[in-house]
Amino acid sequence: MTKSVRIGAEEARAVLGKVLLERGCRADHAAKVALEVTRNSLEGTYSHGINRFARLVRSIDQGIIAMDAEPALLNAFGAIANYDGRLGFGIVNAWFCMDRAMELAGAHGIGCVALRNTNHWFRAATYGYQACGNGMAGLCFTNTMPNMPTWGAVDARLGNNPLVMAFPWKDGDILVDMAMSQYSYGSLELAVLEDEKMPFAAGFDAQGTLTCDPAAVLASQRIMPTGYWKGAALSFALDIFAGALSLGNTVSTIGTFKGEYGLSQIFMAIDFARIAPRDAVETIVRNAVEDLLSSRPDGSSRPVVYAGQRMREIRERNLAEGIPVDGRVWAEIRSFL
Amino acid sequence: MTKSVRIGAEEARAVLGKVLLERGCRADHAAKVALEVTRNSLEGTYSHGINRFARLVRSIDQGIIAMDAEPALLNAFGAIANYDGRLGFGIVNAWFCMDRAMELAGAHGIGCVALRNTNHWFRAATYGYQACGNGMAGLCFTNTMPNMPTWGAVDARLGNNPLVMAFPWKDGDILVDMAMSQYSYGSLELAVLEDEKMPFAAGFDAQGTLTCDPAAVLASQRIMPTGYWKGAALSFALDIFAGALSLGNTVSTIGTFKGEYGLSQIFMAIDFARIAPRDAVETIVRNAVEDLLSSRPDGSSRPVVYAGQRMREIRERNLAEGIPVDGRVWAEIRSFL
Repeated sequence: MTKSVRIGAEEARAVLGKVLLERGCRADHAAKVALEVTRNSLEGTYSHGINRFARLVRSIDQGIIAMDAEPALLNAFGAIANYDGRLGFGIVNAWFCMDRAMELAGAHGIGCVALRNTNHWFRAATYGYQACGNGMAGLCFTNTMPNMPTWGAVDARLGNNPLVMAFPWKDGDILVDMAMSQYSYGSLELAVLEDEKMPFAAGFDAQGTLTCDPAAVLASQRIMPTGYWKGAALSFALDIFAGALSLGNTVSTIGTFKGEYGLSQIFMAIDFARIAPRDAVETIVRNAVEDLLSSRPDGSSRPVVYAGQRMREIRERNLAEGIPVDGRVWAEIRSFL
Repeated sequence: MTKSVRIGAEEARAVLGKVLLERGCRADHAAKVALEVTRNSLEGTYSHGINRFARLVRSIDQGIIAMDAEPALLNAFGAIANYDGRLGFGIVNAWFCMDRAMELAGAHGIGCVALRNTNHWFRAATYGYQACGNGMAGLCFTNTMPNMPTWGAVDARLGNNPLVMAFPWKDGDILVDMAMSQYSYGSLELAVLEDEKMPFAAGFDAQGTLTCDPAAVLASQRIMPTGYWKGAALSFALDIFAGALSLGNTVSTIGTFKGEYGLSQIFMAIDFARIAPRDAVETIVRNAVEDLLSSRPDGSSRPVVYAGQRMREIRERNLAEGIPVDGRVWAEIRSFL
């Protein structure tokens, strides 16, 4: 990463929104995308926030994103529905669908919405936090373009298909946001630039040997599934659920496109308080968190935290000090104006 | 493992059922448990089938399992409900709850049932196949006793909390059944007996170094989460969902008991055909499977398969040749009669 600059959240949001408006984006979509892209960085997911915005603008300029499109209902029954995202903004479509899942959950206790033909949703966690913000549990996942070989193979026919499970808690939502590859290609590229090895096996080299060398994995393109055969299997199951329920594209079909678009996603919300009183749940969650955090540290630099715990402090710091943004990316974004 | 013997499926089922009946088990529960335990082995999950039955009988004799208990409804709203398993058979309770989730899915498109105070459900995949058998997609998970340290810790405060995602397909259901530890303690013990190393890092040794040596991990009890920090995070999220929605025990509470009981589980079924016609889904799944299976093998002994693919052929073989059962376990089971 080139040297980063710190940008105030309000300034970032204003600049991003202006860039979109100047490209003819409708005002509500421009405001939503600018808000969420900024928030992703504000809350510490730099790879899927402002640093990715220049790439989004290039996608718009290439005609990949239909900036005005809204999801269109395909079919609905009770607490389930599927929508066609009509290649609109990934963020707008995904937010709409988690909202819809929560509406269904309000009526039925649980809601499940499948979405096809959408674009990259940026930070997966966003839609988990969306559910938590309404006091509901959330579960969502997306497929991607092929970027990972399955177990026993050399060619990439699986996506890294991020999965989110989110549970609201007043002291800090519990939120897992995990891709099905152990490391992203982005983190391997960063490690090469900084001349570092990965701490754990990142994939196979060209000879089929397990390696922590990021350059070797970038060369072989044999990135490691999370948990070896397990992440490969789960990636495929997530793809089947998303593709089938949305009547959309699976990873294999997306692989025939000229870029990463036409994605399929699933959004589930559970209005658990209908069957589990909030005060009882609060006690259950607090006891579990306290027990986990009382773990005896292993003496490494790996901090004992629960998933999602650090988000608030990162957010507070970035609100106070400004959001770190790749200096080169920020210059490119400003050049769009 | 001691030398295995091959037992016909019908013989196994009859012997298991008789052992339960002689212990005073009600006939329907005895038949169900004997059927499913046998089927687990028949379909290749030997560790969670007949080989585990002697242990089940010992649990019955210790009074851990209330053989006659049926789940009692706690709360219900629309498509969600929670039940108290009253420490009945894990298999009976889990089957009941996936059935109930499917009933709810029939009415609402999706159903979600949480279960507390249950016992070990044996093979997690069973309840995924149960959904597939009714043409529905299934998702279920359980917590366990503490058996894995979280990331950065040395003491076990997480469960390995198996997760199942299942999607029906006429040529062989797609089914992922994965624990949140990379290897089970059972597989480490087996490797020690056979004087083998694990193919990938199985945990940390007492010095905190990553190791493939099963004896070192058995000594340190620092088993590796699936995908390192990722499996630890997902394990905790699954535990929170299961414990909170069921108003039941989380792993931390189970750790205070004298054995592994009082578990919490989640069962979800999706009657996807209500929004996605079966013929369209069939095409989507077939194309995805065919693409995956056209992967170029890496030249290792790791076969390219989709998750669940091999179940049918194992079942066919075991039907023809008898089910492999640990000879010592089979002798113990027969001694119960």
